Amino acid sequence: MERTSFENWNCSVARTLDLIGDLWSLLIIREVYFGTRTFNEFQHHLGLSKNILSRRLKKMQADGLMERRAALGDARSHEYHLTEKGRSLLTVVIAMMQWGDQWADDQKGPPILVKERNTGKLIAPVKVTDGKGNSLEMRDLTLSAGPGADAVTRSRLESD
Amino acid sequence: MERTSFENWNCSVARTLDLIGDLWSLLIIREVYFGTRTFNEFQHHLGLSKNILSRRLKKMQADGLMERRAALGDARSHEYHLTEKGRSLLTVVIAMMQWGDQWADDQKGPPILVKERNTGKLIAPVKVTDGKGNSLEMRDLTLSAGPGADAVTRSRLESD
Repeated sequence: MERTSFENWNCSVARTLDLIGDLWSLLIIREVYFGTRTFNEFQHHLGLSKNILSRRLKKMQADGLMERRAALGDARSHEYHLTEKGRSLLTVVIAMMQWGDQWADDQKGPPILVKERNTGKLIAPVKVTDGKGNSLEMRDLTLSAGPGADAVTRSRLESD
Repeated sequence: MERTSFENWNCSVARTLDLIGDLWSLLIIREVYFGTRTFNEFQHHLGLSKNILSRRLKKMQADGLMERRAALGDARSHEYHLTEKGRSLLTVVIAMMQWGDQWADDQKGPPILVKERNTGKLIAPVKVTDGKGNSLEMRDLTLSAGPGADAVTRSRLESD
């Protein structure tokens, strides 16, 4: 079954989903956080076929999320690194991890703890906040049409 | 092509991806933010077949993300609402939206502005922070095995 493309939707959530692709992308990014760099390491840890992994890494390069570089000291082998665009997905990945820790727990507690390197303290929960750091929930928010809204988005948000 | 199930992975990101399912789930949640409540409204706005929408809403109810209730004033019709678990995905959705606004922009600016209801001010960017509100990037973080780590996760994180 072909996945629907959300690329042309007038919605930043849909466009993000389009780049995150078939969900393996986020797990590849998570592997980078673990220190994985080479094709063989990705394959070993993710248990993907070479074919699918190769296609996925190429797509992530084409989308500007990752770049392939010659490995230091061995110009014949290559390493995959996140670009700034790819690194910026950290907030999305951590938000997903923290939600999963809370709501998709197997009763044993979090598999992974994320700590600040300097202090060794756990990072804070990622939250939606106002400018002063106060937590906001959906009922505290309103949506309105932005400069990039198309006619449909605009009419939906203005009719509410 | 069947999607791989990540449910049994020892990873909260993977488990979250498993519940977010085939990506339509997050777009259904976004529809709820727009004020959509009934099956017909979801179908109209998402342009999904009845079949796929019905399957997706049932899966979200089974996963505890949404609940179906009799509509106020008309016991024969039903509305779909987010549960607390579903509402808690707000941070993930907003993090995706803000990333998309920045990195998957079509040069026209954000389609949708999210503002605080009381003040009318734009919400702050969602960030990974320490306890004091300072932004953290991946290089500021370390990963270690948590109480729910299995043997593989533990050996990977302890060998680094």
